[in-house]
Amino acid sequence: MRFETIATDETTDARTGKLYTAHGVLKTPAFIVSASHATVRACLPEEVAATGVQIVAANAYHLLLRPGHRTIAALGGIHRFMNWRRPILTDSGGFQVFSLGAQRTISERSVIFRSHIDGRQYELTPELSVEIQNALGSDIAMAFDECCPYPCDRDYAERSMELTLRWAARSKAAHRNSHQALFGIVQGSVLHDLRERSAEGTVEIGFDGYALGGLSVGEPRDELHSVLAHTVPLLPQRQPRYVMGVGLPGDILDSLPYGIDLFDCVVPTKNARHGSLFTSTGTVRIKNARYKDDAGPIDAHCDCDTCNRYSRAYLRYLFTTREALALRLATIHNLRHYVRLMERARAAIADGSLMRLRREVAASNGGP
Amino acid sequence: MRFETIATDETTDARTGKLYTAHGVLKTPAFIVSASHATVRACLPEEVAATGVQIVAANAYHLLLRPGHRTIAALGGIHRFMNWRRPILTDSGGFQVFSLGAQRTISERSVIFRSHIDGRQYELTPELSVEIQNALGSDIAMAFDECCPYPCDRDYAERSMELTLRWAARSKAAHRNSHQALFGIVQGSVLHDLRERSAEGTVEIGFDGYALGGLSVGEPRDELHSVLAHTVPLLPQRQPRYVMGVGLPGDILDSLPYGIDLFDCVVPTKNARHGSLFTSTGTVRIKNARYKDDAGPIDAHCDCDTCNRYSRAYLRYLFTTREALALRLATIHNLRHYVRLMERARAAIADGSLMRLRREVAASNGGP
Repeated sequence: MRFETIATDETTDARTGKLYTAHGVLKTPAFIVSASHATVRACLPEEVAATGVQIVAANAYHLLLRPGHRTIAALGGIHRFMNWRRPILTDSGGFQVFSLGAQRTISERSVIFRSHIDGRQYELTPELSVEIQNALGSDIAMAFDECCPYPCDRDYAERSMELTLRWAARSKAAHRNSHQALFGIVQGSVLHDLRERSAEGTVEIGFDGYALGGLSVGEPRDELHSVLAHTVPLLPQRQPRYVMGVGLPGDILDSLPYGIDLFDCVVPTKNARHGSLFTSTGTVRIKNARYKDDAGPIDAHCDCDTCNRYSRAYLRYLFTTREALALRLATIHNLRHYVRLMERARAAIADGSLMRLRREVAASNGGP
Repeated sequence: MRFETIATDETTDARTGKLYTAHGVLKTPAFIVSASHATVRACLPEEVAATGVQIVAANAYHLLLRPGHRTIAALGGIHRFMNWRRPILTDSGGFQVFSLGAQRTISERSVIFRSHIDGRQYELTPELSVEIQNALGSDIAMAFDECCPYPCDRDYAERSMELTLRWAARSKAAHRNSHQALFGIVQGSVLHDLRERSAEGTVEIGFDGYALGGLSVGEPRDELHSVLAHTVPLLPQRQPRYVMGVGLPGDILDSLPYGIDLFDCVVPTKNARHGSLFTSTGTVRIKNARYKDDAGPIDAHCDCDTCNRYSRAYLRYLFTTREALALRLATIHNLRHYVRLMERARAAIADGSLMRLRREVAASNGGP
């Protein structure tokens, strides 16, 4: 997988670059938008594309359950199925299986779990996860990993990290789609020596890019920074680095100085569906009664289709009457906010103003 | 209100024409799409417009309850509020209040009812209904009427019809918006003498157009035809005629020979949201398992954005996973189906082929 660095920040490891995929070039740092069920909830691909979103992430676990990866493969692959022509990353399903808690049994061989939909039993192996992703035809596939909870005792974290390493090797051995990159996932909770062992072991197996998993699972913010500071330098300079599950605008900007290229998080889409909107002057909770008669746009500085056409009053009204349109108009706005955030981040890295951008965003819009 | 007849069927009273409103010209016969809550559920105005829909109907009752007509008026009126630049009809709320059943008390003066949302008590008079519609700024307002149930005893139907006549006079007297047409509503259940008295009385008061209410409330199809055959000739030739609540494609086409110009019904939108899709070869119930791997469009003869871009398999998948996008893609398809039906109806009236079109549609697509 070709990855070029275009510019590097003078005082930190932050960088901007280009990542070449089978469905086009990503400008990095890039934010990956959730489309776990092969749709960005409530939005059509063309309007997601119109906001400037470069890449979305679907999920092997969800698509295995419904409609089944063979169905999607028979229909021409995931891009054609969901009518999204830009890059798609697929997650391996490791994180979703971890979220099932007591409903799953992890062994050396596999995870056995019951579907959250109909209770049917499934067995997911690294080989099957990669086979699913190969069949879906995403541009970037992820190795199958176990994601530790936080907090997690050292013994569990260590065994889990070692299992993830063996699963990484099996994932790589199973990979059959030459149009698709495969990324490894570094685990090890917040313990530096485990992260170190995981990074070295994962790099030794050799992947097209490297992700840090097991973060954004409840650990304090300084633990995130400590893991990034310690682990990122162990990953190859010339390959893309991806922090999974991060995050809020402030957390994204604060992760850039470590040299991160890719991010994903449900926050912009999920918060939108709950009426929590990112703006240049802080979060707008649009269901609040104060917006009942407000003729202004969500954010006077936003150029999205929602802000161009609809008032806060109309959007609040759609939320209070539970109209499906509310979810869509809110999602379009939050996606555009994130797209512009990443555009500004890339420009700031190139012109040396990243610190100023971080201060600006921290002052106005720390999170939801 | 200016209304021109362009062509008349040679063997029936069917006609095509142009109806001039403050927001543009309607080609008639036209189908009015439901937007009771100031939105065509799950769809943006621009995509509704892209299907060719000419006019939508909002509802005074729903908008009184939320967000309130004064809020919408202060925000510049209903067109700006919902960002729909084409004609809008508002219903008076009479039918919705009728639907509340035991929850409302009808008197000479008004209907007193409790909100279905928060139980708050409201009083709706003909004057308030017209005031709401004046404030919303729709292109066509409807007089406030009482809609009889079916079946209904003669005594009730007669008293209700007489009350509706008195309310019609009060509605007209209260009307203050010179940019807005006001239509009267003929009631009288399925009793010819009552319909006759209602039609004559309503025409005597004098409106910009005339609607037939109290139909599509459960009466047999031949009763609908009998009322149309008996009542429509009593309405002025040179003014638009509107059958409220009709209907299915076959019922629309079968009503045209009586000289009907306007129709409305929840069927295309509501059925879409339940996965029932109109096609040139009959109804497709898209949730059916037979479509799981079906790579074809909903209807091979349809040119809508959904059929152009998405497979039956994807749409079925979105319905089974309860994605909001399903409602939207299905609605766009059904709206386009209705738009083309009305286009074909207008062309058929003009070229004398209405009977052939009726047979064709009856053979393929009588309803859901």
